[in-house]
Amino acid sequence: MIQGEPRQGNGTAFNSTDPSTGARLSPAYHYASVQDLELAAGLAEEAFATYGKLPGKERARFLRHIATGLESIAAELVEQVNLETALGEARLKGELARTVNQLRLFAEVAEEGSWVDARIDPAQPDRQPLPRADIRSMLHPIGPIAVFGSSNFPLAFSVAGGDTASALAAGNPVIVKAHSAHPATSEMAGQVVCRSVRECGLPPGVFAIIFGPGTQLGTALVKHPKVKGVGFTGSRTAGRQLMDLCAARPEPIPCFTEMSSVNPVFVLPEALRTRSAEIAKGLFGSFTLGVGQFCTKPGMVFLPRNEHAGALVEELKGHVQRAAIPPMLTPGISRSYREGVAQRQGASGVETVAAAEAPDTVADTYAVPIVFQVNGSDLVRNPHLAGEIFGPTTLVIRYENIEELMALARGLEGQLTATLHGTEADIAQFAGLVSVLERKAGRLIVNGFPTGVEVCHAMVHGGPYPATSDNRFTSVGTLAIYRYVRPVCYQNFPQAALPEALKDSNPLGIWRLVNGKFTRAEVADAS
Amino acid sequence: MIQGEPRQGNGTAFNSTDPSTGARLSPAYHYASVQDLELAAGLAEEAFATYGKLPGKERARFLRHIATGLESIAAELVEQVNLETALGEARLKGELARTVNQLRLFAEVAEEGSWVDARIDPAQPDRQPLPRADIRSMLHPIGPIAVFGSSNFPLAFSVAGGDTASALAAGNPVIVKAHSAHPATSEMAGQVVCRSVRECGLPPGVFAIIFGPGTQLGTALVKHPKVKGVGFTGSRTAGRQLMDLCAARPEPIPCFTEMSSVNPVFVLPEALRTRSAEIAKGLFGSFTLGVGQFCTKPGMVFLPRNEHAGALVEELKGHVQRAAIPPMLTPGISRSYREGVAQRQGASGVETVAAAEAPDTVADTYAVPIVFQVNGSDLVRNPHLAGEIFGPTTLVIRYENIEELMALARGLEGQLTATLHGTEADIAQFAGLVSVLERKAGRLIVNGFPTGVEVCHAMVHGGPYPATSDNRFTSVGTLAIYRYVRPVCYQNFPQAALPEALKDSNPLGIWRLVNGKFTRAEVADAS
Repeated sequence: MIQGEPRQGNGTAFNSTDPSTGARLSPAYHYASVQDLELAAGLAEEAFATYGKLPGKERARFLRHIATGLESIAAELVEQVNLETALGEARLKGELARTVNQLRLFAEVAEEGSWVDARIDPAQPDRQPLPRADIRSMLHPIGPIAVFGSSNFPLAFSVAGGDTASALAAGNPVIVKAHSAHPATSEMAGQVVCRSVRECGLPPGVFAIIFGPGTQLGTALVKHPKVKGVGFTGSRTAGRQLMDLCAARPEPIPCFTEMSSVNPVFVLPEALRTRSAEIAKGLFGSFTLGVGQFCTKPGMVFLPRNEHAGALVEELKGHVQRAAIPPMLTPGISRSYREGVAQRQGASGVETVAAAEAPDTVADTYAVPIVFQVNGSDLVRNPHLAGEIFGPTTLVIRYENIEELMALARGLEGQLTATLHGTEADIAQFAGLVSVLERKAGRLIVNGFPTGVEVCHAMVHGGPYPATSDNRFTSVGTLAIYRYVRPVCYQNFPQAALPEALKDSNPLGIWRLVNGKFTRAEVADAS
Repeated sequence: MIQGEPRQGNGTAFNSTDPSTGARLSPAYHYASVQDLELAAGLAEEAFATYGKLPGKERARFLRHIATGLESIAAELVEQVNLETALGEARLKGELARTVNQLRLFAEVAEEGSWVDARIDPAQPDRQPLPRADIRSMLHPIGPIAVFGSSNFPLAFSVAGGDTASALAAGNPVIVKAHSAHPATSEMAGQVVCRSVRECGLPPGVFAIIFGPGTQLGTALVKHPKVKGVGFTGSRTAGRQLMDLCAARPEPIPCFTEMSSVNPVFVLPEALRTRSAEIAKGLFGSFTLGVGQFCTKPGMVFLPRNEHAGALVEELKGHVQRAAIPPMLTPGISRSYREGVAQRQGASGVETVAAAEAPDTVADTYAVPIVFQVNGSDLVRNPHLAGEIFGPTTLVIRYENIEELMALARGLEGQLTATLHGTEADIAQFAGLVSVLERKAGRLIVNGFPTGVEVCHAMVHGGPYPATSDNRFTSVGTLAIYRYVRPVCYQNFPQAALPEALKDSNPLGIWRLVNGKFTRAEVADAS
């Protein structure tokens, strides 16, 4: 969908699947052609000239218009998403609310305007030995951004999701490559965005949505010279491919991929002694939530070799044995899950603690929840056990002593999250572990679970590689606006030629750093 | 120099050269061995555990200690640098002052503390439909940083220069690979830093300096798993190699290379009519400053085909014909300059406007200032003419009309700077050109010249590729501190376990974003 109109595509059609039944869904969708991509990129570049300069208030109006548009079709949208994802109405209503709130939160940030980090160092004509020129800077958008829709968040990380909202809020046009698992959902959300583009009087190239295979269309998209940044949520393999493509371009571009995380959980002594049943219940809820199809699913639980830990594992076993067998998003994801589980079952030192009882016949999208256990020493011997299995499974790791625990923590790869259960005294006693985890994860959680990512100003949904491509940024929360911007500096510009954010009179009333001090005051005329 | 002590190296020795005479300077220096690098990286990683957590005040004390140390050896240092670079005492005194000021400015930023972008979204236990957890985040340093000393700023972009100061201010240990053109200078500055490490009671791994060839030691350094970021100022070829190495690592790391820029200058009609002599003089001063060995040297001047532009070119000719013939930094740089000039002289459509008169015998480091001229249409036919020639030369481009000028501007590669000379009316009339240049350059200058980069809060010494590797950042000014940091989020942490910057009571008194509003107030207890 380019300029709000459907296109013919390259002649190849595809259908999505109902994960509950395996049935092929109608209608068919078409892969975009090379010409479609060329058109979308050209229009996006053209739109950037005006959209990139639009006042924050107008960008906010646009984002709110999208939010209202999504709400106005809430019932049909949730029904359609459920048909394509089987994630369930409750979860999808929640995800829609999050998507809408996210658009409104970015609208607030764009409208308030201080996010541009306006900095003013006024001229010092009398400075010795040399006068200082007037120097001002602020953040500008960078140009068309390619957003790859995710499979697991058909609304919140897809067409009108977080990557799109943050890129649009900053002033960048967006070309979404929709995920092939939910084309009808993507089309509905895309129509809402296109309608908002039209009704807000914006140039049509501000937004486009295309379908196509990642290996061909996705590659062509990130290599397109008019595309200036990439946002992606998905697998480690695909994420790394995108990173490598972006880095190898004649003009490399920022690539933000959110890829792979096992989200370790550490249960500290006092919490283990007093709350093992509650923690087991919470953990079970967290690793099976959304059929374990969350980037933040806790896939590793570190427990000592003692009776309290044994009790926690027994509790977990009970929950898992009684667990339901829900469908995953696509046959491919389900197949990967079964393969991952089978590989783990056969790995040396791995014990199956409990698995849900599978009914005789299950559709090929179904996933059986299962918990594994291994000794710390076996994990060290088989480091591949520390890899992510996307789906409702977790791995309990039993360690002998605190030295072993610390060594295991130091050996972790980069993570989106790390979780500690403990009393205040536990946390104080394990300050060394907290320090290790600060370097391993983007978000540290105490006495909670990593699933459920709050969309707010302080959220960091990022983390060292391989959790993401660039741990200086986040893909959730208002900080995400800083991924697709760059500072531009104005030296000795006449007031009339300066952007509003940098004029002496501070017409936008934003917070600025003037001579290194935060202020909303006007800049006094020094001349 | 590791742990403040000289090392034996790998057995290969090298000497620097006096650029004025071509004489080999003593003593010889030694390339670092693989073991030296391993030791430096291990110590840096070890030091990070404490240095990364040091309060801003103590990091500030350390940076100021280095500044004072450099001042205390100012006379000997300037003499030594001049011997190795022939940049002249006045320039080097200025560069030392800048280096020292830069350290003190970063000390201020570290001490004041608000740069960590502390964000607090307090818990909302009663929120519907779900309570909100307490979410807080702030920036943390990322670990050991490899800094490559530049050839052209032996003090300000070298051992104790901007990359080192910004990395240290943020809490990252630094391993400097010193430039082989000025080893004695590097050693002197390195001794000052090592003494400050010792006298401030810091772990010895906070700073190390090694010598070696870029293709071997430099490669090993950026590939080292303990190195977490790179800072570099130098050529486009070497910069791109470092970018590619960093991107291809098993764990890719942020790589900030500042590489190549021709810094276009545009003289608009009224300014041209009224100030052509003054602009010619300023331009000549700027492109020959420091023998043209600045990243911000104006290497391209866009002028219309009219009599006022003709007068400006005539003025320029006079200045160039009377110009001195100074030595460049190294025989290699001088050779590249002569090759670049010869290639340009032979290019189709290129006219030599004027060259300084070379004496009969010049040492092989000397560089003859020269100005070329070409038509816009010839530039389009020979795009390689838009490449950087490092040294005292510039290229005048004559265009026929504003449409041609706009097309030429749109065809520019990414730049560190772009300069406009014009009255307020000129600038208003050429708003479209300003918009194009905002996308091309990190800094736009009105009625000035790009050389002379102010070290302040609003400075951006960055720009789209190939000016730098990552236009989201700058290598000069306090914004440079944001290159080697990442946000870390704390969810539901007890007050006692939070970093100082995030505690309710705001013990550091810093500016924070609480519920999306800037404030220095305490966070009210909501429980």
